[in-house]
Amino acid sequence: MIESIEASPLYPIANPKSIVVFGASNSITSMGTSLLDSVLDLGFEGEIYPIHPKESRVQNLKAYRNVLDLPSVPDLALIVLPTRIVSEAMDACGRKGIRHAIVISGGFKEVGGEGANLEKELVAVANKYGMRFLGPNCIGVANPRRKLNTTFMAFQGAPGFIGMASQSGSFVTQMFGYLSDYALGFSTAISVGNEANIDLVDCMEYLGACPDTRVIALYIEGIQRGRAFVETARSIVPKKPIVALYVGGSEAGSRASLSHTGALAGPDRLYEGIFRQSGIIRARSVMEMFDICWTLGSIPRIKGRRVVIQTHSGGPGVEAADACARAGLELPSLSLETIKRLRPFIPKTGSINNPVDFTFGKNLIDYFSKIPKVLLDEKNADILLFYSFTPKQRLQRLMRQMGIPTDQIEIQAAKLVNTYYESIIQLFENHDKPFVGYTFQDLKDPLVRILIERGIPIFQGPQRAARAIEAAYQYTLLREKILAADSQEAGMGQS
Amino acid sequence: MIESIEASPLYPIANPKSIVVFGASNSITSMGTSLLDSVLDLGFEGEIYPIHPKESRVQNLKAYRNVLDLPSVPDLALIVLPTRIVSEAMDACGRKGIRHAIVISGGFKEVGGEGANLEKELVAVANKYGMRFLGPNCIGVANPRRKLNTTFMAFQGAPGFIGMASQSGSFVTQMFGYLSDYALGFSTAISVGNEANIDLVDCMEYLGACPDTRVIALYIEGIQRGRAFVETARSIVPKKPIVALYVGGSEAGSRASLSHTGALAGPDRLYEGIFRQSGIIRARSVMEMFDICWTLGSIPRIKGRRVVIQTHSGGPGVEAADACARAGLELPSLSLETIKRLRPFIPKTGSINNPVDFTFGKNLIDYFSKIPKVLLDEKNADILLFYSFTPKQRLQRLMRQMGIPTDQIEIQAAKLVNTYYESIIQLFENHDKPFVGYTFQDLKDPLVRILIERGIPIFQGPQRAARAIEAAYQYTLLREKILAADSQEAGMGQS
Repeated sequence: MIESIEASPLYPIANPKSIVVFGASNSITSMGTSLLDSVLDLGFEGEIYPIHPKESRVQNLKAYRNVLDLPSVPDLALIVLPTRIVSEAMDACGRKGIRHAIVISGGFKEVGGEGANLEKELVAVANKYGMRFLGPNCIGVANPRRKLNTTFMAFQGAPGFIGMASQSGSFVTQMFGYLSDYALGFSTAISVGNEANIDLVDCMEYLGACPDTRVIALYIEGIQRGRAFVETARSIVPKKPIVALYVGGSEAGSRASLSHTGALAGPDRLYEGIFRQSGIIRARSVMEMFDICWTLGSIPRIKGRRVVIQTHSGGPGVEAADACARAGLELPSLSLETIKRLRPFIPKTGSINNPVDFTFGKNLIDYFSKIPKVLLDEKNADILLFYSFTPKQRLQRLMRQMGIPTDQIEIQAAKLVNTYYESIIQLFENHDKPFVGYTFQDLKDPLVRILIERGIPIFQGPQRAARAIEAAYQYTLLREKILAADSQEAGMGQS
Repeated sequence: MIESIEASPLYPIANPKSIVVFGASNSITSMGTSLLDSVLDLGFEGEIYPIHPKESRVQNLKAYRNVLDLPSVPDLALIVLPTRIVSEAMDACGRKGIRHAIVISGGFKEVGGEGANLEKELVAVANKYGMRFLGPNCIGVANPRRKLNTTFMAFQGAPGFIGMASQSGSFVTQMFGYLSDYALGFSTAISVGNEANIDLVDCMEYLGACPDTRVIALYIEGIQRGRAFVETARSIVPKKPIVALYVGGSEAGSRASLSHTGALAGPDRLYEGIFRQSGIIRARSVMEMFDICWTLGSIPRIKGRRVVIQTHSGGPGVEAADACARAGLELPSLSLETIKRLRPFIPKTGSINNPVDFTFGKNLIDYFSKIPKVLLDEKNADILLFYSFTPKQRLQRLMRQMGIPTDQIEIQAAKLVNTYYESIIQLFENHDKPFVGYTFQDLKDPLVRILIERGIPIFQGPQRAARAIEAAYQYTLLREKILAADSQEAGMGQS
């Protein structure tokens, strides 16, 4: 474990004050230009020095012929050059005194043969100068809080709490929009490429020390330093959870990995074991990985697997009960105290069991305040799973029948929904018992978005919710296990 | 099996020319008023007769004191009255000569005790007059092509090809919006409630004969007539697929079902056997059920389990390969012919394996026309799984750098995307080899919606796509098995 985030080789890479860019030009179709564009688009506030053999200006910035000509020593070199001249540029950087780089260019180890030799050469040059670098064959880093985005796609959305290290660049860039849809975002996302110098383990260390990162996501096609991986993960997990997706375990996944990054995937069971030993939660898909991150980064720690479900519809309640059971969660009976407290709010057509079914209760506010309050107090349950369906239509219809002018209805109904939601948001923010929601509505619906923008995880369908709850509880257990083992070890050291 | 759709007791219920409504009033909060509102909202074109003991007009319609006073005999009675007076209304309907009803009211068998007796009485009244009815404790029918919606929620979206019978009303009404999000819709959706008279089997028969229904969806908490269920399903499956969700198999699901509809759920394995025998595809969630319906209703029949994946990003390609393998699908090697034909379109950084990876190919049109054309011709594959990520941002950036005025860029990029999409839509519409897409984008994004509105199933994440493909192939097998058994039986009959 590193002492502080500044001790990580990734610190200057993810937080540079100045950057030199190799490979950007005034040609609009070049990758290098695209990358420089991304840096400029997000409004990077430090110095940017393009290197170009001929042009005196590149994308409206003063360009330099040679890195040695630069007026100062940049924190970071960004290299997007043809494979065969990358080492040469790296050597020039080393001579200039630059100690950190991102090598975007591909054509190295992942293509085999001569590429593998070129990668060895690159590593040797870096070692000569004590340089640390990310890549090659990566797309770099997005650290939106520092307005840094070295990927070839424009950043979308806002900074968030998910720290990601990925063996796929697409799972960085193509997730900008995806995470925004969930009101989530990256603290820092790192594309590691071939990991010739900086690897997943370094990334975990960095993200473990990063104060903006509440949860770490890893996309893995193959692990190089197994032992260091396990040890580093174990040192981080007591402080923050790590969620990983490994797709090389199936034969098809393994073959596809090989042609993607050249990673040698191992059998599924081996990786399963590594993750268990590391205290890492394993996700089965990219979407599930982010579902779990969402939950772990948003709710208080879950202390057990007992779920109480609140619904106003039978079918969605039954499906949620089934989904919880299949995910390994329990549905406890309600305590007498809870039953007594719920009785005034649940109509005769409803049900005071678990799921609690409000059916067509008349006082909608009860659904969003009184009932969840009672259920969060339930001592037999560890978490509330809340069925969310915006009552906009019902309210609009009532308003129309009450004679409210047509042009007012939409806005008045939205206001009322907002009031209801404010009640449940207050419970969410002020109760130490966790809850999450599920819905079949689109998360882009403005009236669903209110909830997710305030940090409440709402999943499409109860299965995703149940799986995320189960994984979040797994984290509680994994963490306790590591803490227990550590304290036992410490005890033995003393004796 | 019924001779024609008109022979079904559900025909007058789902296609009435005139309706009498019991329980609607001028009180805006009553359920009955809400139902009448839904009927009116969708613009039902037949006669509507409200029955009310006091008012002369109900919701601006002429009201009648007694059903016997009506000027004609309506096709359908819609009953939303307090439980204890439902039989009385039913009896009056019988005397008037009405032969079909929907009983919305609850408080019958599902609450046990006296409710069960009231249900017996209701059945006896119906039998006395030879009446057929849906319910009680249901929310009726939505047949948007006939502008009929008897549920208490306003219909949203457009008519579609999914015929649904559901033991949960919410999985009818709360899916109106959900299906619209996928550019899908119901042909007819039926909430069966307690099935005191018309049951799931009747619904399957109706939907089997319904020309607008391409695929049947069933939400099941318990089956009453097992043998008839199996036989009816087997008679339909050769013509159209049936997909079912059964959630009573887990203990928690079973308990929740019991308090919802009073259905006695059976062990999971029993239902698994019933579905297999029936040739029904089993879904594991409501969302998965509709995913499978979407696929089966949209693509040509899948002849095998061999999938070829097309991607422009390594990570999403690897995840799709893994998802397919885990779903039981195969990823064949490409034929030499295909490899030869692909070579001009795939850049050196890409991969001509399966997944085919375009990476950063320059000619985007190749991705949407030439490459999928070659892959659809691949004789080693039965279906193409296509990674879809709108290149809008890339195009916008290029246009900006080309000096196209800022206010033109958005619209020009969208136009270009449209051109690309038109190419792939042409392939989709004119090739007899099926394909489906997967994406991490929101389906509400206008540039994703183009594809789904033209009928291409695009799933969020490769897992949903792989599962839907596997289920669609299962249908091919289940259908063949039934046809083979039927023809063997026919052969034996002749000998």
